[in-house]
Amino acid sequence: MSLFAKHQPILERAVKALHERTFFAQYPEHPSPKIYGEEADKNGREWFQQMVGQQFAELQQADSAGWVGAEVSPYLQEPLNITYPTVTPDEYLVNAARAFDSWRKVAPGERAGLLIESLERLRERFFEIAYATMHTTGQGYMMAFQASGPHAADRALEAIAMGYEELTRFPQSAVWTKPMGKYEITLRKEWRAVPRGTGLVIGCSTFPTWNTVPGLYAGLVTGNPVVVKPHPGAVLPIAIVVAEIQKVLQENDLDPLTVQLAVDTPDKLITKELAEDKRVKLIDYTGSSEFGNYLEGLSGKIVFTEKTGVNSVIIDSTDEVDKMVANLAFSITLYSGQMCTAPQNIFIPAEGIDTPDGKVSFDEIAAKFVEQINGLVDNPKAGPFVLGAVQNPATCERVAASEKLPGKLLLAARSIENPMFKNARLTTPVLLAIEADKVDVFARELFGPIAFLIKTSGTEESVRLASQLAAEHGAITCAAYTTNADTKDYIADQLALAGTPVAFNFKTGIYVNQHAGFSDFHVTGGNPAGNASFTNPEYVIRRFFWVGTREPVTG
Amino acid sequence: MSLFAKHQPILERAVKALHERTFFAQYPEHPSPKIYGEEADKNGREWFQQMVGQQFAELQQADSAGWVGAEVSPYLQEPLNITYPTVTPDEYLVNAARAFDSWRKVAPGERAGLLIESLERLRERFFEIAYATMHTTGQGYMMAFQASGPHAADRALEAIAMGYEELTRFPQSAVWTKPMGKYEITLRKEWRAVPRGTGLVIGCSTFPTWNTVPGLYAGLVTGNPVVVKPHPGAVLPIAIVVAEIQKVLQENDLDPLTVQLAVDTPDKLITKELAEDKRVKLIDYTGSSEFGNYLEGLSGKIVFTEKTGVNSVIIDSTDEVDKMVANLAFSITLYSGQMCTAPQNIFIPAEGIDTPDGKVSFDEIAAKFVEQINGLVDNPKAGPFVLGAVQNPATCERVAASEKLPGKLLLAARSIENPMFKNARLTTPVLLAIEADKVDVFARELFGPIAFLIKTSGTEESVRLASQLAAEHGAITCAAYTTNADTKDYIADQLALAGTPVAFNFKTGIYVNQHAGFSDFHVTGGNPAGNASFTNPEYVIRRFFWVGTREPVTG
Repeated sequence: MSLFAKHQPILERAVKALHERTFFAQYPEHPSPKIYGEEADKNGREWFQQMVGQQFAELQQADSAGWVGAEVSPYLQEPLNITYPTVTPDEYLVNAARAFDSWRKVAPGERAGLLIESLERLRERFFEIAYATMHTTGQGYMMAFQASGPHAADRALEAIAMGYEELTRFPQSAVWTKPMGKYEITLRKEWRAVPRGTGLVIGCSTFPTWNTVPGLYAGLVTGNPVVVKPHPGAVLPIAIVVAEIQKVLQENDLDPLTVQLAVDTPDKLITKELAEDKRVKLIDYTGSSEFGNYLEGLSGKIVFTEKTGVNSVIIDSTDEVDKMVANLAFSITLYSGQMCTAPQNIFIPAEGIDTPDGKVSFDEIAAKFVEQINGLVDNPKAGPFVLGAVQNPATCERVAASEKLPGKLLLAARSIENPMFKNARLTTPVLLAIEADKVDVFARELFGPIAFLIKTSGTEESVRLASQLAAEHGAITCAAYTTNADTKDYIADQLALAGTPVAFNFKTGIYVNQHAGFSDFHVTGGNPAGNASFTNPEYVIRRFFWVGTREPVTG
Repeated sequence: MSLFAKHQPILERAVKALHERTFFAQYPEHPSPKIYGEEADKNGREWFQQMVGQQFAELQQADSAGWVGAEVSPYLQEPLNITYPTVTPDEYLVNAARAFDSWRKVAPGERAGLLIESLERLRERFFEIAYATMHTTGQGYMMAFQASGPHAADRALEAIAMGYEELTRFPQSAVWTKPMGKYEITLRKEWRAVPRGTGLVIGCSTFPTWNTVPGLYAGLVTGNPVVVKPHPGAVLPIAIVVAEIQKVLQENDLDPLTVQLAVDTPDKLITKELAEDKRVKLIDYTGSSEFGNYLEGLSGKIVFTEKTGVNSVIIDSTDEVDKMVANLAFSITLYSGQMCTAPQNIFIPAEGIDTPDGKVSFDEIAAKFVEQINGLVDNPKAGPFVLGAVQNPATCERVAASEKLPGKLLLAARSIENPMFKNARLTTPVLLAIEADKVDVFARELFGPIAFLIKTSGTEESVRLASQLAAEHGAITCAAYTTNADTKDYIADQLALAGTPVAFNFKTGIYVNQHAGFSDFHVTGGNPAGNASFTNPEYVIRRFFWVGTREPVTG
């Protein structure tokens, strides 16, 4: 049985889910022993522990340029000393070009089957990936499991499904008969979806699989070989993914170098050399706006980016002020604000907001924020696990410096202790109150757990500022609280024009940070935060083009 | 009855045709009195004749910057002295921004209905458009009718249909329920397709409606206001289109300035001022590679281009050598080689080609080309009508200069007479024989009736050169002749990689120049000839983006 036939039920469910956009998950998000096996967690942890200091030997790649690696655990603040085999940038691209010629000829359904097979294999390694993610990104255990495992696999499946649908959208052939009055002309036509060529997928340090697999699988399913250039600080999670795809390819007599991992180190980065090479036709990137803009400016490439943004919260009114603040406090604290979806700018009318108990003033809301964030951070059963650790020391420096920004410091960063990792790199959120006219201060992404309560003249100014910042500086999320239907419509309309999805009145059990596969488009392409929308049709169709042939039917 | 309901049958047929890609035409291509009315041709001609020297008063536009116009008839070589109302570039964009706010809120189906209504109105004006096209582009009567009338309207309908399909591809709302073990979370989600904003559609001088209406209607159907900046030499045909759309908008209480015609003159071009303005979000362009590359380099815009290319013919073998040559002779001569689909470089093995009667030598094929082109040009019932007239005097100069290019001049340009237009700007084709190693000579578009017979070492070199020129310099068509199935597969594969559709073994009644709406993708996006593929999904989906909202369902 072909892998297409084997996985057709999954593929069909996924394509259906894309269109229904109701809840769908192929891979369960809970790290439950009942689902994943009694030993899975323990085995994953032990696998990671034995990897430390070792060569990652699973890749079917040469090592002509040596074994390198520079990962540091944010929990241990010690190098992992895991190394990966490397070749020169030119060799990666030569290998990719060779693999292209066979991979492009594999039928779309078979490609989808092979790629789904790799996800099914990954499922068996979700706990290994989880520990690898914790100790490279600093994510808490639960996030590391969910984001890098099932959520990433679902996003990959979504890209496969969207790609498969687009690749099979037009007929492979048709007979075209044109009536010409006394006679007719009959042509046989054929169409093929031609992949563009080698793709380069550039990973980030905080979500090494979740932000990488959509571009990786979108590139592969549409017939392109892919070189994955991970962030030097977060290699191991995606190395497992690449290794599993390579194994599936090899088992099926395909060139394993259809996908390659191109590891580099901070002292010798290879990203620009790869990106600027004419042989690279597609680029996927997650990271800073500065580097993203540089990539977007390269000519002759199709570039998909997720860059930085400034996410807003618009507070107009609410029926449950404490639950609202608790929800936002969690969103600010979660993974120490290192999510691209984390809120930063919280717009609150100077006159306060309407609630069932009357007006609640700006200062009262501010006090509730301080209380809720402290309560969460200081809860030993929640704080350390929600905060996780800080991936990059520069983030801690930014957090410390933010205390000196204009405005009123409501909450300073504190040092707390993670009971399991005494040496973890930690910070708690900084919260400032600031006037709306100090827009220069908050009109940029301050990556990390830094939030502003911004005093506006009213909801109209809040909406105007949130829209303007999104349109000018990018935004990936917006949370809004209002009990007024007209205000809700107005917020939705204005933020839509600024390319920003809005989460209304999130209170319990669901957070603005979370974008669900098969339902929420992550990044809209409508503002400077990027154009890599997981997964809208554009995200796959620009990776190939349609070409036809025509020939008269004779006889 | 809404216009959506009225035109839903047409829309549904068009969407179906997009997917079947068999023959479909909503608008009959033959200028038959039985179809279009006994008086239609006469009325169209008379309408055009009375327009000469007049103001085009049908546009619902202000004239604060005066009435301008600089069209010259290639058949009369006299100015038409038709003028159009103009405002400043800033005013066009202010008007467009105002219209945007209402147009974006019109439902996709209603937008499609309004736009199809405008096409149905245009149908009544196909003969007016035909004469307007003849006397601005130099096209022969039949081409002017077909290309600017029914073929253009079908391409517009194709864009509407593709846009409508994409806009309605995802649900407007869904209830998303996530099981959480002991409880569940239910969100109501809504999605909207948000148009990007003002579009600028820049026309060309040779196909003023056919190359303009796809971008115009694709922009409008996806909710964007459009400013049409026609080539100053070919305004009247598209002015009729814009006027008809404006009338439909006004009759339906919508802002007629949702579409505007922005006429300029060669001494005061406004294209760059419009294109560089931040308010312009979308650009469609047909014309030179130089200007197209400049537009593609503007940041913050979505740009669709059809630029120049170098179209090849690969002759490997044929069962009917005379019919093959006759077919190509027609393609070279048609509209004096001023089609973007016209062949230029004809690759022929030095050792000749296989036919049922044995080898036919390079020189014999060359002699047949000379004979067939002369026969066509000198046939008084065909020559002048097939050739049409030359739009731009520079083309005549290029044709004359081409006789001095390296290689052997097989056929020089001659002056012939058009019996109906004694003063027409005419030239006949130039044909040169050249060695394959003189690639610098033929590796660029020589716009006009200029063709090379290129002597190669064999079909492999022919294919290699055709592919390489397409990949490096762009190509919109390729014709190939072979009786060998393996060779055919090889040509199709190699040219597909170079983003070039191939017409195999065209002999009678069908020409490589012709791309059929609803079936042939015109321009693939796979080579430097441009990315404006009529009409693939990318051509519409990049004109809007998806944005969602989420809210917990309570109670």
